[in-house]
Parts: sequence; C-alpha cells; structure tokens
Amino acid sequence: MAEFETYQLGDVVLQSGVTLPNAFLAYKTYGELNETKSNVIIYPTWFTGFIKNNEWLIGEEMALNPSKYFIIVVCAFGNGQSSSPSNTPEPFSGPNFPYISLYDNVTLQHRLVVEKFGISKIKMVTGWSMGAQQTYQWASLYPDMVETIAPMCGSAKTSEHNYVFLEGVKNALIADSNYNSGYYEEKVETGLKAVARVYAGWGFSQQFYNKKLYKELGFDTLDDFFTGFWENFFLERDPNNLLCMLKTWQNADISNNELYKGDIVLALNSIKAKTYVIPAEKDLYFTPDVSEWEVSLIPGSELYIVPGDWGHFAVDGLNPEDTKFVDELLKRLLELN
Amino acid sequence: MAEFETYQLGDVVLQSGVTLPNAFLAYKTYGELNETKSNVIIYPTWFTGFIKNNEWLIGEEMALNPSKYFIIVVCAFGNGQSSSPSNTPEPFSGPNFPYISLYDNVTLQHRLVVEKFGISKIKMVTGWSMGAQQTYQWASLYPDMVETIAPMCGSAKTSEHNYVFLEGVKNALIADSNYNSGYYEEKVETGLKAVARVYAGWGFSQQFYNKKLYKELGFDTLDDFFTGFWENFFLERDPNNLLCMLKTWQNADISNNELYKGDIVLALNSIKAKTYVIPAEKDLYFTPDVSEWEVSLIPGSELYIVPGDWGHFAVDGLNPEDTKFVDELLKRLLELN
Repeated sequence: MAEFETYQLGDVVLQSGVTLPNAFLAYKTYGELNETKSNVIIYPTWFTGFIKNNEWLIGEEMALNPSKYFIIVVCAFGNGQSSSPSNTPEPFSGPNFPYISLYDNVTLQHRLVVEKFGISKIKMVTGWSMGAQQTYQWASLYPDMVETIAPMCGSAKTSEHNYVFLEGVKNALIADSNYNSGYYEEKVETGLKAVARVYAGWGFSQQFYNKKLYKELGFDTLDDFFTGFWENFFLERDPNNLLCMLKTWQNADISNNELYKGDIVLALNSIKAKTYVIPAEKDLYFTPDVSEWEVSLIPGSELYIVPGDWGHFAVDGLNPEDTKFVDELLKRLLELN
Repeated sequence: MAEFETYQLGDVVLQSGVTLPNAFLAYKTYGELNETKSNVIIYPTWFTGFIKNNEWLIGEEMALNPSKYFIIVVCAFGNGQSSSPSNTPEPFSGPNFPYISLYDNVTLQHRLVVEKFGISKIKMVTGWSMGAQQTYQWASLYPDMVETIAPMCGSAKTSEHNYVFLEGVKNALIADSNYNSGYYEEKVETGLKAVARVYAGWGFSQQFYNKKLYKELGFDTLDDFFTGFWENFFLERDPNNLLCMLKTWQNADISNNELYKGDIVLALNSIKAKTYVIPAEKDLYFTPDVSEWEVSLIPGSELYIVPGDWGHFAVDGLNPEDTKFVDELLKRLLELN
C-alpha cells in the first residue's frame, strides 16, 4: 500500500494571482465511502505535519472509525507531501515557491473532495492547530456542505501574539547563514536546532516543564527531551517547507476572501455546521480566550476546553487522558448528527 | 556627575572556584545615607539592564524617594557596567569570562554594602526579574540584615520552563555564525535581531499583542514595535554579556550554596524579612503560580499580583497604572517597618 496518494490539480491560480503549475495534493483515505456518500470526514494536516502524524486519532475504537467513516487526511501545501518548496521544480522550487493562503489550501482540498470523489456532504471536518484553521475555513466557505466541525487548538484568524511567536521561530531559523535566503546546499542544522529550542517553550505549558511531564513521554532529562523530541522533529523538516507553512499560518484568516472581505465576525456568523471548539487550557499560542470569542460568534457552537498541563500538544496523541477527552467529544458530535 | 561609580573587589574567588582578577561592581546611589545608616534600599539590576533602566522607580513622589532613603542601584555582573565579558581584559575577556552565580552576585554586593558604606541593616531590597532573584538571595543569605523585600516578577529558583524559554533566546543568538563561539569581530546583528523577535513573544502577554497595547507606547504597528522597542533594546547589548547573564539566570537558585545545600524550601523558610511577592498576572516566564508557592514558604509573606495584560513588562515603568500599583505596594511595605 502506498504511503499516500496524490491528486493532480493542474495549473492552479492562487489567491495571490500567481499560477502554480502542476500543483498536487497528497492525501490518504481510511475506510470506505458509503453508497450515499454520507460518511465523509475531512482531516487536514497541521504545521509541518505529515499524514502519519494525523493517524493517532483514527482507529476502530475511536470516533474516527474507518469501519464507519470514510476519512480523508489531506495535506496542507508546504508539508513536503502536497506541493511544497521541496518537491516543486523550477522556477517555483525552494524559496521561490509561492505564498499559499489558508483559502488556497481549502478551496483546493474542496476540488479533491468534489472532483475526485463526487462528495457533496461532509459529515465532519476536524483538525489540530493549522488543521483547525483549515477546519474553520471549510465551514465558512462551504456552510451548506459541512455538517459538523471540531477545530482543536486552532483559531479562525491567527492572533497577533501567535504571529509574534512565529516571527521568533522564523528568525531563529534564518539566523543560520547556512539558510542562505533559502538557497541552502548544506543542512541548516544550527538553525533547525535553534527552532527546536524556541518552539520547545511554546509547545507545552510552563507547568508541563516545571512538573517534568516529559518523563511521561519517556525522556529522563530536559536535554533528552530537547534532542529526542524537538530536534528529532525539526531536523526531519525542510527549512523552506517550514517557512512556507509558517507564512500560511501567520496570515491565516478565514475572512480574507471575496466572500467575507476581511469581516471575521461575518465569516464566523456564517458557519452553519454544528461546532465544537476544542482549545487546550494552557495552550500558549492558540489561547482559549480566542476560542471563547469565536464560540460567541458561531451560531450554536459549544466550547470544550481540554484541561491540564500539556498546552498546545494536549491534542497530538501524546497522552492517553487528553486523547480520550478529545475522542469522546468527537464521538458525541458525530452522534448528534 | 559620573554616570556611575565602581567598587574594586580585587581578585575574587567565585563559587565555581575560578578566580576573577580585579573584579568590580558598578553602582549608583540616590539620596543620603542617614546617621544611623537605617535608610538603605538595595535595588539590583535585571537581565541586560543598565543602571539607567532602574531609575523609573526612583523619585521624590515615589516609594523609592531619595529625600528619605539611600538607594543603591547595583549592577549584576555581566551587564556591561559591573565586571563583564565586554570590559574584562584577557584571559577572562569575551567568551572566557567565568560563570557568575546568583550567589556570587549577592555576596559581592554584600561586600560593597558592608566594606564601602559600613551598612549593617538594610531597610529594603527590591528588584525586577533577575533583580528579584537577587532580592530573594539577599534575604535568604542575610536574614538578620534585610528588613523587607519586594521581589517583582522573579523567582527564588529559575523554573524549568523559564530555563527552556532562555534556551530558545540563546540558540537564536548563537545560530548567527557571526557569533563565532563568542569571538566575534563584526556585530552579531542577525542573531541579536532574532533574539529580539524570540523575546518579543515572551516579554508581554498574548492579550497585550492581541489588543495592540504597544500603541500605548507610541508604536503604531507591530513592525515599529519590533524595531523601535525590541531591536533597539537588543542591538545595544553585547552578545557575550547577554549570554553571561543568561547563564546566571538559567541556573539561579537561592539554595545553591553551602548554607542551604540545594534545599529551596529551607532557603525560603529562612527568610526573616517582611516580604511582598509581586508577580504580574500574565507574566509568561515568571508565572504567578511559582510566586504563590514561594509565598507559601516564606514566613509571613504576602502575594500581590499586578493585574492586567502587560505580562513580564508590567514592572518596567512602561505604563503608569502598573507603576502606580507597584509603587503603592512599596510605600506600604516601607511604612510597615
């Protein structure tokens, strides 16, 4: 079985007006599309996430049960599997890969869903972090198509503080002269290791570190956690891919399109899907206060905060308690509908 | 009037066992020492802070009133005014400057106070951030000498998350190959600008940015704030000095000495000074929960949390409301005694 499939989009005119030739989406499906095409779940990837990184939430005993649902994990552009700086030929390779907006990601995923599978109703869209941003964008662009959404640790518009945090991440990477404006030939190792350490403080909460909860992940010391978790994670990533997605994230705003013309309140108001907004209590960049504001604007939506010390990474399958919390919410939301 | 004075300490044996030859402390005094030497306030500097950066809290209408008190602003080692990588001759210049512990800082400040001024009672020690760490160290090392303390946005022991945040700052700086293991000849501009952006996300709270409160500081846009506030701040700093103090901070622990042998509970229990612990509500690295824990261990101490969105920089004289809050606490504490 192939690791993933690709859907050829042809030459795509992006929201910026730039044409990306021979664009493609990477995706993987789980389960069978039923006869009425009424069992579809869309589950986009997160910042730098590969398809495999989404799989912890899929399983026979889980809400995302492939025996019941047809689950499409689809990759955001720039993740290295969908069209990305690292897999696109000149003249759009590397640092010349065009800016991809949140809108681009979702409208092109919509093409996959409609053109490839002939789907017209989606039971649920869900995702974590940037995946949650795509989730909001799905529900606001296609309010009559999407029945339920469960954005987890994300926001409909990137907050300014979140933008600032990402500026730090970006500048730690490009401070390494090996980065060379994106025309690197050697590994940008120092920069990626700096990214790992900058990100480390944000990914989990203060209390996670102060209580040394990384021990629950099998890391005996903080240094082990830095290298075994954070460095391992980022050294696997291509710097231009990382910066491509980072820019998408920094500028994410579900209202930044012709439909909503920058009116985020209107964009949130327009969502018809039954919505569970699921932030994590101590998430340091997708903070629950923003989720609360979103819930106040999405008709009939409900807020469920993942309690505890795991911060943003509460919803990454790392600890069973939080996974259970999230999975039960998804089960309930799927049963409602 | 000289910008500051220096006190020559001679050859100093540091806690590490290393001897720093011709060490000196920079300090500046405000007001007059009274006859009974009973009006002394010690006010150490913070991470990268110069003497001038402490002056916002001193004034005729303020708690730290030079008409009543003899205020000694004393510089932590590495700040560029006290002995530092940047002002020490070979073989201890630049990256070869020795590690300075929190204990070193305070025991040598104690020498200044006793040897130079013949002071045996201190009315108050106060400071912000790393200055607060020195404040705790003063009270725990000299419990019979220090009458009151007001540590602001600091901790008696650097928390592990705080250490992680600083690892990010450090690695953003040294990712710049101009840093060259500390043997730089050109300005480490890219690295310092990366530090500015990494620090930016931590220095103020999420809500500070999301509400664009930097406009209250006269910055119209986030970019103006990045350059006018954060870059201006860090580009003025010497990278080796910055890393010297960062290491002091990362390893700060008032119990790491022969007196308390790593027993932080004992060190906090031993404080006799009347103590007001003053964290800021949304400080992202000196978090109020740690302050609360400290208050539970310092006999008779009281917790006063600076409310609002300014995060760590609530206590840096940037906004009048928070300054008033802190100043009134200091007035009350000084009057108690």
